[in-house]
This record gives sequence, C-alpha cells and structure tokens, in this order.
Amino acid sequence: MANPLRVKIYYEDTDAGGVVYYANYLKYMERARTEYLLEHGVNVAEFHNKGSMFAVVDVDIHYKRPAKLGETIEVTTEIVAMTAVTISIKHQILRDSVLLVEANVRIACIDRNGKPTRIPEEMKMIRVS
Amino acid sequence: MANPLRVKIYYEDTDAGGVVYYANYLKYMERARTEYLLEHGVNVAEFHNKGSMFAVVDVDIHYKRPAKLGETIEVTTEIVAMTAVTISIKHQILRDSVLLVEANVRIACIDRNGKPTRIPEEMKMIRVS
Amino acid sequence: MANPLRVKIYYEDTDAGGVVYYANYLKYMERARTEYLLEHGVNVAEFHNKGSMFAVVDVDIHYKRPAKLGETIEVTTEIVAMTAVTISIKHQILRDSVLLVEANVRIACIDRNGKPTRIPEEMKMIRVS
Amino acid sequence: MANPLRVKIYYEDTDAGGVVYYANYLKYMERARTEYLLEHGVNVAEFHNKGSMFAVVDVDIHYKRPAKLGETIEVTTEIVAMTAVTISIKHQILRDSVLLVEANVRIACIDRNGKPTRIPEEMKMIRVS
Repeated sequence: MANPLRVKIYYEDTDAGGVVYYANYLKYMERARTEYLLEHGVNVAEFHNKGSMFAVVDVDIHYKRPAKLGETIEVTTEIVAMTAVTISIKHQILRDSVLLVEANVRIACIDRNGKPTRIPEEMKMIRVS
Repeated sequence: MANPLRVKIYYEDTDAGGVVYYANYLKYMERARTEYLLEHGVNVAEFHNKGSMFAVVDVDIHYKRPAKLGETIEVTTEIVAMTAVTISIKHQILRDSVLLVEANVRIACIDRNGKPTRIPEEMKMIRVS
Repeated sequence: MANPLRVKIYYEDTDAGGVVYYANYLKYMERARTEYLLEHGVNVAEFHNKGSMFAVVDVDIHYKRPAKLGETIEVTTEIVAMTAVTISIKHQILRDSVLLVEANVRIACIDRNGKPTRIPEEMKMIRVS
Repeated sequence: MANPLRVKIYYEDTDAGGVVYYANYLKYMERARTEYLLEHGVNVAEFHNKGSMFAVVDVDIHYKRPAKLGETIEVTTEIVAMTAVTISIKHQILRDSVLLVEANVRIACIDRNGKPTRIPEEMKMIRVS
C-alpha cells in the first residue's frame, strides 16, 4: 500500500450540513489513486496527453463518519484485483486512524473515443494486495 | 416514480476527458432526490432549517456511458425500501432513453450533531416501489 | 436582455457557512451565459465540438447578499460591449428582485491550442445593450 | 509574503476545454489564504466553530494562461490593505514562475447571521505589504 495522501478540508469541500459534501470524497480518492499510480510508474497526465484515460466503471462507497472544516484526512489506495482490462482499487479515508469512508472503485482503460483498451504494462508490475 | 429531473451539462460538469466528471453524477442524483421528496411533501431545506438532515450512508453506482457537454440528461428517483431509520433509493440517468448511469443510494435521517433520528412522517406516506 | 436563468440551490452549492460557496456563482453565470448565447444562435457545445471555445479573460464580481439552501435565484445576462476578439457581459443574480451578486465578465474566443480567434459571426448579430 | 501554496491539478479541476475550469482558481486562492492566515495565527476553522467567518466581498480576477492536468501550480497570498472591517488580499498563481492568474480579493468578517463584525486582533498584527 502506498503512503496515504493527506487532504486538508477547506470551505469548498463542505456543505450547509457543516460536513464534507458526499460527492467530494470521490475527488479525494481520485487524487490518492493518481499519486499512487505515479509512485508506481504510471503518470495519468502523460497517459491523458497520449490519448489514454482511466474511466471509473463502478464505485461502492460507505460513509461512516463525516470529515469537517479544517481537518486533515488521509486517503489510502490499494489495488485488490486486476484483469486484462479493469483494475479494482480499495480506498479508505481516515482521520487520526478512525475510518470515515471506505470504497471499492473499479476502473478501466479507454482511448479518446471511449473504447476500452488494455491496461498499461507499467500497471501490471504493481503487486496486487 | 416521479417525473425525472432534466439536467443540462455545462463546462463546470465536465473534465479534461471531455465527459462529465464521475463525482458529479452524485450531485444530479441529489438534485433529483430533493425534487422527488418535495413533490411528496418533504422539503429538504425546511428540514435543514429545523435541524434535520438526510445523510448518505452508502452509494453503489455503475457508470455505463458518459454524458457530454451540451447534452440534457434525465435523472429518475424511486424509493425501493424504507426502514424506521433508512431509505433506499434507486436512481437512473438516461439520455434519450439510453441508460448512462445507475445507482442505489441509502440515506438516513440525522440531527445537527449527526445523531440518527427517525425518518419524517411525511416520507412514510410515500409508496415504496 | 434574455429571460433570466432560474437556478435552484442544493447542498452541493453551499458550504459550512450555510450559504452558497463564492466560486459557485461563477458557474451559474456561465450557465446563464450559455443559455443566452443559445437563444441568440450561438451553440457553445457545437462550437466546442468544432474546436472553438470561449475563454474567460477577466471577472469583476461583487457579493452583496448570500443565497441559501432551497432558494431559487435568477441570473441575468447582458452583452455590454464587443470588440473583434472579446465580449463584455454583465450578469446579475437576484432573489425575489433583490440583487445578491453582480459581475462583469470578459470572454474571448480561442481555438483548441488556446490561440485567440475572431468571435463567431452569429454573435455580432446580438445587439449590445 | 507567505510561502506559496502548491496545488496539483487533477481531473476534478479541469473541464472539457482541457484546462482548469475558471471558477476553480477561486478555490485555490481560498486554500492559500487559509494557510497564510494559519501561519499568521488566524485559524479559519476555529473561527468558524466560534461563529465567525470571512465572507468574500469582491473579487477582481485576470486569467492570463491556463493550468492543465498534472501540473503543479503555486498560489501566493499577500495582504495589501486592511480597514476595521475589511482585508484586501492579492493572489498570484504561477507555474514555473510564469504568471497564470492574478486576483484582488476583499474579505470581511461576519457572524453566523451574516452581520459584519470587527476583524480579529491577530490579523491586525500581520504587516500589510
């Protein structure tokens, strides 16, 4: 598992309920995923510029406790399964080791026209947990 | 099932992949849910002002086809189950009757301190599909 | 001036301060601008697909009163000046005829590489207020 | 001037134009402002919890060059004027020392009901540039 990504919560992240808006956790998970892939030799921006993208296929997310303004949370990324065309990733979001949000995200590799392509060779080097 | 909510896609909704960013579909589903509840006598903003909120507990979402800039999509809302403290909702997002995204969302009713409360009486009047 | 665009405020629009997050008013103004242009024969999405885009050059925005959860606001759009390469637009955001936010936005037309291009002929037909 | 805040650009930040969406630069400026204030003894989240908030009154922003996916930008914050009730801040956003976006932001201090209050004593200790 890569070092978790630290995310500080600003007003932009919160809603009138006083907590982080539920869709925003998906942003943090993508940030963490991007950094995880970079650490493993897969540069999402370079892929993008060459015409390849990762598209999210499924998300199964569970909200346990909310994050709030001014807090710093940690987002973990772990690859749990890989096929020729999809990668299954588990993310956890924690605050001081307390689990706030947990999700399984399945991504596929597509080209500029949205057609599925094989996942990059570099990714196959990543050891599945 | 309530009339679907129509959503027009603007630049704010899209990302550099040329399609709607994956977290944004959760926003459209909440918009649709809010209007559905209003049609059934539950005013989310009034609830909020009285100190009650709906918190999302789980989302299980499947992305099948992307929506793009300038398109108008339709978001359906259907209550599929209800307990004393949670409500399960199914949303579909369609473009010209083609299914783009599908999700099951479970929400709970909480007070200002995040403590679970009973779901409002008005909601119990809604017939579960 | 075109008919104002009506925008309903949902949780996604608000922050922990209990009001609409300040950056979000720029989204509503772009939505209103897009619909205004469409009414005047300029389809932003079609332009985009042909490789032309409107880029915002400057925004001068004044926040007078906040919008809140559940409210419906109206966003007006008025073209106040036009040169060969830029268009100056005035937006007002109102709630029940009370002015909440006001902005002047200057946009330019660019191609896919970010190079300035002439503004579309259709736009020159729009009478400047 | 405080150390600039570094911001990495992810898909969430971009739009179908392939660049950062224009409203998002206001988010980065608020992040930088929040960290700047914290370095100078003003904790925005603590203020919030005590019922005080900074509200943006005006923004005058100039977009010169776009930021793109995968880039890291730097956001500077400088207090340029202060009255009993408002603070004027200048932000610059740079990539490799090239100016991308520049803005003047005026903020005021308000209480939970939106009523203006005096700016915190700690802020008066910050030397105006």
